[in-house]
Order: sequence, then C-alpha cells, then structure tokens
Amino acid sequence: MIQGGTTQPSQTSLNEAAPETAPVGFLFDLDGTLVDTVYQHVLAWQNALDASGLHVAVWEIHRRIGMSGGLLAQALARELDRRITPEEAAKLQAAHAEAYRQFSKQARALPGARELLNHLTSSGVPWTVATSGGKLSATLGMELLGGLQPPYPIVTRDQVKHAKPDPDLFLAAAVSVGVPIEHCVIFGDSVWDMLAARRARALGVGLLSGGYGREELERAGAYRVYDDPADLLRHLDEVGVRLPG
Amino acid sequence: MIQGGTTQPSQTSLNEAAPETAPVGFLFDLDGTLVDTVYQHVLAWQNALDASGLHVAVWEIHRRIGMSGGLLAQALARELDRRITPEEAAKLQAAHAEAYRQFSKQARALPGARELLNHLTSSGVPWTVATSGGKLSATLGMELLGGLQPPYPIVTRDQVKHAKPDPDLFLAAAVSVGVPIEHCVIFGDSVWDMLAARRARALGVGLLSGGYGREELERAGAYRVYDDPADLLRHLDEVGVRLPG
Repeated sequence: MIQGGTTQPSQTSLNEAAPETAPVGFLFDLDGTLVDTVYQHVLAWQNALDASGLHVAVWEIHRRIGMSGGLLAQALARELDRRITPEEAAKLQAAHAEAYRQFSKQARALPGARELLNHLTSSGVPWTVATSGGKLSATLGMELLGGLQPPYPIVTRDQVKHAKPDPDLFLAAAVSVGVPIEHCVIFGDSVWDMLAARRARALGVGLLSGGYGREELERAGAYRVYDDPADLLRHLDEVGVRLPG
Repeated sequence: MIQGGTTQPSQTSLNEAAPETAPVGFLFDLDGTLVDTVYQHVLAWQNALDASGLHVAVWEIHRRIGMSGGLLAQALARELDRRITPEEAAKLQAAHAEAYRQFSKQARALPGARELLNHLTSSGVPWTVATSGGKLSATLGMELLGGLQPPYPIVTRDQVKHAKPDPDLFLAAAVSVGVPIEHCVIFGDSVWDMLAARRARALGVGLLSGGYGREELERAGAYRVYDDPADLLRHLDEVGVRLPG
C-alpha cells in the first residue's frame, strides 16, 4: 500500500500498525490528461505541416502528440523521407502555436480534473505537472484549470534536454515534488508518457481522454487505465490514495 | 482463397484447377477509411454540441464517429443524462454541417486511396462505398477522391432505416454490388464498422487511419488491420485479391 501525504500521517489509514510506506508523488502530463486540448493540437499541427509542404495523415500526427514539437516534426518528416533543419523546426513550431490559438477556443479542462487535483492537494499528496509543451503552451493549458496552483513548480519542455519518451521531464518533476522517482506515479494519455514512466522506473497510469485506446496504453506499460480525471478520482484507492468521504 | 473479379477469370490464378470460389465484393466506409476527415468531423461535432449546451470531452465524440449523426447525438446526450428531441437532433446536425465546412478545408484523400480503388476497378472487383453520412457529406467526401467513380452506386444514411452499428448500410451496399453479403469484405476505421460487419456476417477489415487503435478494432472483430489504404493495397492478397505487378 502506498500512502499519500508527506508532511502529516494520513487520517484515514486503515492499518495504523503496518510499517510506514514511503510517500507517493503524483506527476501529471497536461494536454489530454488534465485539459481537453489534444485534438486541437492535432489539427493545428496538420495546419503547420501543410504550410511547409509536409502532408501527413491526421491520425499519424495524433499518435505522436505528447512528444516535443521538435521530435514530432522530425518523426513525421522521416515518414516522408524528408529531413528538417533547425530553422524549419522553429518555423513549424511557430506556425503550430499560431494555428493552435485559433483551434483552442473551445478547449477546456477535462471532467473531474479540478476536483481530482484539489483532492490531492487537500490530502497532502505532492503533485505537479510535467509537459512536453513549452512555457507558453503550458501557461495556456494551466489557465484552463481555472487558476488552480500545483503545490510544486511545474516542469516544461525548455527546462530539460530531452522530451518524452525520454524520462527527463518526469525525473525533473520528481525532483520538484521532492519524492524519489521510483515512488512516483505518472499519469498520461499517450504511449510516450507510459514509455517515459517505464524508463524512469515510475508507475505509469493511462487516461483515455487523449484519444489513445486502452490496449495501446496497456501495451506501453500502463499499470491501470481510466477514462479521464473524473474516473481516476473515483478509483484513487487503486493507485494508493484514500478516496474522499 | 477468395477470388477477385466478377466478369472474367483472374489471369494470375495460382491454381487454375481449383474449384471456382464465389466472387468477392468490397464495401468501404468513407470518412477515416478513404478520406482523412475524421478529426475535422470530431471538432465540428464538439462545436455543434457546445452551441447546444452539451459539453462532451472530445475523445468521447471521436469514439462515436461512424455512427449516424442522430445516434451520435443521442449517445452523447445520454452520457450527460439528457434527452434530445428530434428538433434538437436536426439543429445539431445542421450546426455540425456548418462547422464541418470550416474545419474541412485541409481535408484530403488518405494515402493510397485512389490507387487502391483504381486497382480494384481495373481488377474487376465489384466495390462501393457505404457511409453513415448523409448525401451532402458523402458528396463532399467523394470529391476528395478526385472524381473517381465507384463501379456501383454508393449507399448513404438516408437510404436505409438504421445506420451503423446496424448492418443496414452494408446490406444495401452488397445489393448494390450484386454480391451476397457473406462474400463481401467490409473496410472501415471504426469499431462500428467492424460490429456492423459481424452482424451482417461479412468479413470486417480495419484501418488505423481514423484514429482507433489496432487492438480496439481487433476486439470488435477485425479479421486484419492495416494502417491506411496504401498499406491495404500492399497487402491485398491477404484479403483475397491479387496484387498489381
């Protein structure tokens, strides 16, 4: 049993005589995991890639969301037997940001995201966000959570050398919450999150809310898969935190 | 071995002494199977649903694309404990059509779609399209194929009583190509296509190009799953038609 809370013992512990287990840290991906923005990012990327003459089917873009923008562009260009210069990559990222501004007008938090995070904060579970997006994208995403503040600083693309599926973002997030990575649970909607979790030796938990299928996430190593943050909140005891009420 | 061609014997038959098998008919879904339009339909539906106060996460819309618009709206409203009147359903469909016009400017044929269909036509394989979309949506989709004409009339939502996952659309398409449904292969990107294929006692073949995962399609009964029409064309002998060249 993994126990939530770092600074005070849990008041709902079922077995107070049991040996104390290490506190658990929760590390969240942002797009598709806490905020409903994946599909808008997908079409914004298609827009940007099209403008550079890179015609890629939309599902292939979807399957690479969650990587950094740089990796995504390189991976898709490789499919077309093209290579992308650093200048082209920068241009693509700017075009994506501009298109995303248009597509994201309908974006909002995923069902249950705010309730989940508020519950974690009030339960004393250390949590934060680790996103493959840059600072601007992260700010836009966090705004959809209605000004909710993580108890520890979030980690964005620009703060680490390699984005997902490299483990760097989650390793930095574990440092941010002050919990060893092997005691962290990583929540994400993409296989890149699950692969990064395994490389970091953390526990990966998948959410369907980014549009991947359950089996894809399980095959990438997800310990459990839930629909969305609301479903995760209802099953929080399965990942080591007591439920509310 | 199922043999392609209805009017003339295959010239590349490996075993001319074998008993003649029945000709095979190919029935194609349109959006996500031949044309790259699923993600645009998804965001257009979100737009339309939002305008009616039905706030649904985007992935939940994606997972219902391929049903008729009416079924999709009812299914999503039910998730929100709402019911939709026929008037509201009609309003939603009009709002979706309007939003789709905006989103679909970047839409195009999926890689290999034209080559695949031209090969089937020149091989004498009877094929047509069966889509849950109405006549207008079908016309827009077929235009993306560049004026390519199916050898038999396509079947649209308005020509049958029930859309997918009911088998009606594919049953009507089998009548259109003049091949018994049990000798037809149904190609689709959604689990609704695969379920309809099973109900019709046809063989379902899945394509990943609509954004479903391979395992989701296999669990819904797909006999084989390919990436997209280009990948299907390369493996056509696996579904009973000789390859070009």
